[in-house]
Amino acid sequence: MNTHIYYIDDQNEALVNHLVEAMDAQSSAVEFRRFPDGESYLRVTDDCEGVNAVVVCSLSQPDDKILPLLLLVDTLKELGAKSVGLVAPYLCYMRQDIRFKPGEALSSRTFATLISQKFDWLVTVDPHLHRYNSLDEIYSIPSRVVSSTTAIASWVKHQVEKPILVGPDSESDQWLSKISELSGIPYICLEKQRSGDREVKVSSDELADWSGFSPILIDDIISSGHTMLETIKYLQQAGFNAPFCIGIHALFDDVIYQTLQDSGALVVTSNTVHHQSNKIDINVDIVAAVQRLVDS
Amino acid sequence: MNTHIYYIDDQNEALVNHLVEAMDAQSSAVEFRRFPDGESYLRVTDDCEGVNAVVVCSLSQPDDKILPLLLLVDTLKELGAKSVGLVAPYLCYMRQDIRFKPGEALSSRTFATLISQKFDWLVTVDPHLHRYNSLDEIYSIPSRVVSSTTAIASWVKHQVEKPILVGPDSESDQWLSKISELSGIPYICLEKQRSGDREVKVSSDELADWSGFSPILIDDIISSGHTMLETIKYLQQAGFNAPFCIGIHALFDDVIYQTLQDSGALVVTSNTVHHQSNKIDINVDIVAAVQRLVDS
Repeated sequence: MNTHIYYIDDQNEALVNHLVEAMDAQSSAVEFRRFPDGESYLRVTDDCEGVNAVVVCSLSQPDDKILPLLLLVDTLKELGAKSVGLVAPYLCYMRQDIRFKPGEALSSRTFATLISQKFDWLVTVDPHLHRYNSLDEIYSIPSRVVSSTTAIASWVKHQVEKPILVGPDSESDQWLSKISELSGIPYICLEKQRSGDREVKVSSDELADWSGFSPILIDDIISSGHTMLETIKYLQQAGFNAPFCIGIHALFDDVIYQTLQDSGALVVTSNTVHHQSNKIDINVDIVAAVQRLVDS
Repeated sequence: MNTHIYYIDDQNEALVNHLVEAMDAQSSAVEFRRFPDGESYLRVTDDCEGVNAVVVCSLSQPDDKILPLLLLVDTLKELGAKSVGLVAPYLCYMRQDIRFKPGEALSSRTFATLISQKFDWLVTVDPHLHRYNSLDEIYSIPSRVVSSTTAIASWVKHQVEKPILVGPDSESDQWLSKISELSGIPYICLEKQRSGDREVKVSSDELADWSGFSPILIDDIISSGHTMLETIKYLQQAGFNAPFCIGIHALFDDVIYQTLQDSGALVVTSNTVHHQSNKIDINVDIVAAVQRLVDS
């Protein structure tokens, strides 16, 4: 099978190299630039006739990337590619899944339709599924979701002494309970500090038993950082070591990143979005998912 | 008939006001912002059920605008708009109409397909039709092309004393001959300075007869400005007054704009793209085209 890996920028260089090696594929940088008037110029520089094309592009800052991506997939198909798949380690536009106010654009659907019309399949890591149960509700193409839990569990086990997984509320339970299961690391869920009506899982007294442990906090995207900052403060007062704040996708802006570090936390992310905090390598899991999909 | 005019930014404010007045329509600013992670947020703030929606958006710097536009048209349709048309005084992505090199993206087709899938009709001003004879070759929706020649002819007649239309080569003939016909302003076509094999229309000796006249140079988009700058120099040596350089779409970057002014030329554009050089008002002609299309 003839597989070519295409990429527009070098944000995902390591993943491209992994895919090339694992799939005995050829990698191909796409010629891309913007004209002074803001239009995109794109050129496929290899012979793609009859190949299975794999486009690698993490979709942070997506508005800049969508037109180049559409130009690329159209060109590959016009030039005879047999199939064109998209590997987006981070998948954007998953949060606007209902109209919170009347008249709001359901951007998750518009974006999913655009991608589904053009690409033949999609691989991503832990998309922000909140009100949607599955990507299939909005993406009409086959998709595979890579879970980051194995990579996170492995990283924590190897890098953190006396770790304890801490959930500020039930929302992070989806990752924490799985990581605890995989790794045997203990897991406690704090009461929700902001709402009085939640079940109290661990009282302040019980917390004292864990002093000297290093708390591991996890969220898929650390947007405002508010819950994390509150939890960090609470844990520090309870006598814990400096906590590790793990973000699956490194999407926080510089101010939040700095604030978290200033709070004494150690900020760690997976490498779905290129960032200086990337420590957890998820590429092996992505490659396995792509291989299964292309081979099926 | 219930017509609503939608706009995302205020670049086309005057045109929106014209349309509102002429069509007894309602104008509606769309709520729009970008999240820190680069995703677009868009909200339609009025009741658009059953209305004929007219979206006004000039497509300079198009990559920034395409996703907001797609979000807007999807939302309007989901909320019950009867039709959604696009008024793009400047229409982007018309120049890449063939693969100049193998593997190049035919961006004109990708863009036209995107717009045609979503909008019900399109109105624009003098699109860059080079190898395409008509927008219908790439746009599958009804379109109306507004010609800028009437507005340019009228402006020149009222603002320039002793004007003479000057074409550096046959490419600008499409506008110059029409403007000359409409206005009675004389028109001369120079030989092409850069290539010796073109027909010489006017010799240097004959040019002397027009000294004291103000030359009018025209191009749809003044990209590099090279041909214009060469022609300006040539005309100045031949004893003409300072020339007027008319660009239909004000797309030149700041450096070229400054260079043209430094050469002694008076740079004038139509208001299809917001720019300090806008002098020629094309809005009346756009409004007439939109009215004919919506009423038909």
